[in-house]
Amino acid sequence: MENFFSVNDVEDVQELLKKAMEVKKNPLANATLGKHKTLGLIFYNSSLRTRISSQKAAFNLGMDVITLNIGSDGWQLESKDGAIMDQGTAEHIKEAAAVISTYVDVLGIRCFAGLEDRETDYNEEVLQNFIKHATVPIVNLESSTLHPLQSLADLVTIETHKKKDRPKVVLTWAPHPRALPQAVSNSFAEWMKKADVELVITNPEGYDLAPQFTEGVTVEHDQKKAFEGADFVYAKNWSSYDSYGQILSANPSWTIDADKMAVTNDAKFMHCLPVRRNVVVADEVIDSENSVVIEQAGNRVVSIQTVLQEFLKK
Amino acid sequence: MENFFSVNDVEDVQELLKKAMEVKKNPLANATLGKHKTLGLIFYNSSLRTRISSQKAAFNLGMDVITLNIGSDGWQLESKDGAIMDQGTAEHIKEAAAVISTYVDVLGIRCFAGLEDRETDYNEEVLQNFIKHATVPIVNLESSTLHPLQSLADLVTIETHKKKDRPKVVLTWAPHPRALPQAVSNSFAEWMKKADVELVITNPEGYDLAPQFTEGVTVEHDQKKAFEGADFVYAKNWSSYDSYGQILSANPSWTIDADKMAVTNDAKFMHCLPVRRNVVVADEVIDSENSVVIEQAGNRVVSIQTVLQEFLKK
Amino acid sequence: MENFFSVNDVEDVQELLKKAMEVKKNPLANATLGKHKTLGLIFYNSSLRTRISSQKAAFNLGMDVITLNIGSDGWQLESKDGAIMDQGTAEHIKEAAAVISTYVDVLGIRCFAGLEDRETDYNEEVLQNFIKHATVPIVNLESSTLHPLQSLADLVTIETHKKKDRPKVVLTWAPHPRALPQAVSNSFAEWMKKADVELVITNPEGYDLAPQFTEGVTVEHDQKKAFEGADFVYAKNWSSYDSYGQILSANPSWTIDADKMAVTNDAKFMHCLPVRRNVVVADEVIDSENSVVIEQAGNRVVSIQTVLQEFLKK
Repeated sequence: MENFFSVNDVEDVQELLKKAMEVKKNPLANATLGKHKTLGLIFYNSSLRTRISSQKAAFNLGMDVITLNIGSDGWQLESKDGAIMDQGTAEHIKEAAAVISTYVDVLGIRCFAGLEDRETDYNEEVLQNFIKHATVPIVNLESSTLHPLQSLADLVTIETHKKKDRPKVVLTWAPHPRALPQAVSNSFAEWMKKADVELVITNPEGYDLAPQFTEGVTVEHDQKKAFEGADFVYAKNWSSYDSYGQILSANPSWTIDADKMAVTNDAKFMHCLPVRRNVVVADEVIDSENSVVIEQAGNRVVSIQTVLQEFLKK
Repeated sequence: MENFFSVNDVEDVQELLKKAMEVKKNPLANATLGKHKTLGLIFYNSSLRTRISSQKAAFNLGMDVITLNIGSDGWQLESKDGAIMDQGTAEHIKEAAAVISTYVDVLGIRCFAGLEDRETDYNEEVLQNFIKHATVPIVNLESSTLHPLQSLADLVTIETHKKKDRPKVVLTWAPHPRALPQAVSNSFAEWMKKADVELVITNPEGYDLAPQFTEGVTVEHDQKKAFEGADFVYAKNWSSYDSYGQILSANPSWTIDADKMAVTNDAKFMHCLPVRRNVVVADEVIDSENSVVIEQAGNRVVSIQTVLQEFLKK
Repeated sequence: MENFFSVNDVEDVQELLKKAMEVKKNPLANATLGKHKTLGLIFYNSSLRTRISSQKAAFNLGMDVITLNIGSDGWQLESKDGAIMDQGTAEHIKEAAAVISTYVDVLGIRCFAGLEDRETDYNEEVLQNFIKHATVPIVNLESSTLHPLQSLADLVTIETHKKKDRPKVVLTWAPHPRALPQAVSNSFAEWMKKADVELVITNPEGYDLAPQFTEGVTVEHDQKKAFEGADFVYAKNWSSYDSYGQILSANPSWTIDADKMAVTNDAKFMHCLPVRRNVVVADEVIDSENSVVIEQAGNRVVSIQTVLQEFLKK
């Protein structure tokens, strides 16, 4: 594994999951592995879980951590090759990536989708440029179209709570007042396809994810039908991929409530957080005993620590 | 002690003071007590002393530290139960508190008063919600109405400099161009009531603190009379409690100057800082040998380190 | 060395360079020297290299680090003596410097020039006030008129790459869309004067640096002539010192390109970064094998680590 940009960087997902379960069991087993190693964390966007869990994971490995809010701590970076930089950007990613590589041993980057131009977002210019110009491993802390650390944490959560070998996992769209990226959902789909689960995605018409992520997956536009017999219900809003970045309708009928959960196989409720209560999910569901969202967020330490360990052991 | 929200969480103030004096004498006596433990610090508001002294105290105990500026690093948190979160808040304190509890071992939170609605501020919704939903100890880094870490540092300062068993301590209102919370003054009153001092509070009419804090305390509206024979003069501005959050008058006559200090018993001058020079206090007083404001600020490391130790030793 | 404000704080530049080359060779040679010591870093302005390299250097020495963005994390500081602080500044540097000195062992400060009033900037009020009121060593992380950590890193870079005892080093002005301070250039001039190099400065008419920095140095207004036989070309924009803070003309003809580099003695290309590509320097030069800008930035860890070591060893 040279970088951790997407599931495609992982040679063997089952093997990585096994390592993650070990990390979960004994988080301090490699407490000096990262001695005199530094984790850099660059944020183009806000963060709570990612920011804190990444630092915690580094501490568990004995690493030092440096965080940088690009734009407020620093300045805007240019990502176009050959740009004549006489406008707003003060530094090219070429220099930033190469320089930071001389200061840190692993570099995590968060950069959300702009949701204005689909091609721009799906080209993943920022992360790909860092990967191209950095000389240390790059970890995706949520890019325009992917959030693999979340997916690995989700996989750990499912592994912990599954009651059968091949559980039915339903990823369901849910309403939200603001237009959100497809990153969490895209990643979840591509990780679940490599896991031992039966994946069903349910969303209203017009909200189908990009075909490269849903290929071979059952997409069901009837939410209740999708929920039948589900072992895990994963709720998440995303804006339209077809009408890119748009909110097509408020669809309050897609909010996850107890009635919908009733047709499942006593499913665990999952969400990556932050979650809009009583918009995405009713209090009665997220506050129920079947909700595993807090443990799921706790597994974010596990997922990044597992990835960091891989890089440190190389 | 389960949390450190107010003096009422402290079983024995004298005992805690004794421990604090030990920390002051030997700050590195427990340099490995916090190994593999993490202190989380969440700031809704600006901070200089609290931010730096809390980190220093954690380092003295061998703890790791993670800071988060909620709102800029993260996003706005909802604190109302049952809210339909389709507006500005992106995450409920329920999730934030529970999730962060899985990442850190002790969690400090700073959230100032809004000074718009007295009931809202005095309900302490933010801190109380964190206490309710967190599963780790919560430390008050200054809330709407209280600043107990400051008060404990003040107590250490008085203990260090007192020349008699029961010194006269005068908390005096002073002018300020902006409306400030009552938190430092409220806390100081409730801590001094449990300490071995004679407490007198002096402020202009209309600036009396909330009765629950001044019960049993001499409140004197003649500043000079209050200063007579004082061993310690503690200056602090606060906005009106009765005309909530208002500045009733500029009252430049209440500025602490050498003339006023002359009627004291060679009193030490105290202030929690930051202080507006030549508004709250004249240069001649804060720059005098009797000023202990720098040492008092230094004792902020002592107070939070003492509190952290209590939680780590449990 | 009591502080590290300018080259004049350094007793023996050659001796310091020798120590820096040792740090470069073996960065972990003093990995426990800073145990239980804390580095404070205060930023009035944005930073990428300085922020990250300073933390990395501290980690290499086993120090803890606390960073503070004054103004957003904290509040505005007053620097005038005797000020009646009833306006925008909430705390005087007197208190801030003295208080922070009780929390940290070495304090770095970055505060750029305002470029509005030359006397104000060249008085270096902020840094000088910190030096006056702090009780710990102050490190200049780039002040209004100086950037000595950059210059020491530059000196290390030249020492590493020089092919003759006394190389010809050309500091050349280059165009830039925004008005920039003279700090990097001033410092570079005063450090090179104490190093074993032949220094030539080239800039358009009207852009001569302050005479106290260029005294004894060849200033050449014909860029190409200056480049002849150069072993090192150091590009940097600065706004006018005479017409203070002004951009006199765009001067695109001063951009460093391959044609200009062709008349040098196979010169190494240097820049302190961030750099505006194809404005300050053409891609063909900064991407060439002779460009040492990334290594130069990497030497920023070396320079601050060398300085920190000096203070820790005292």
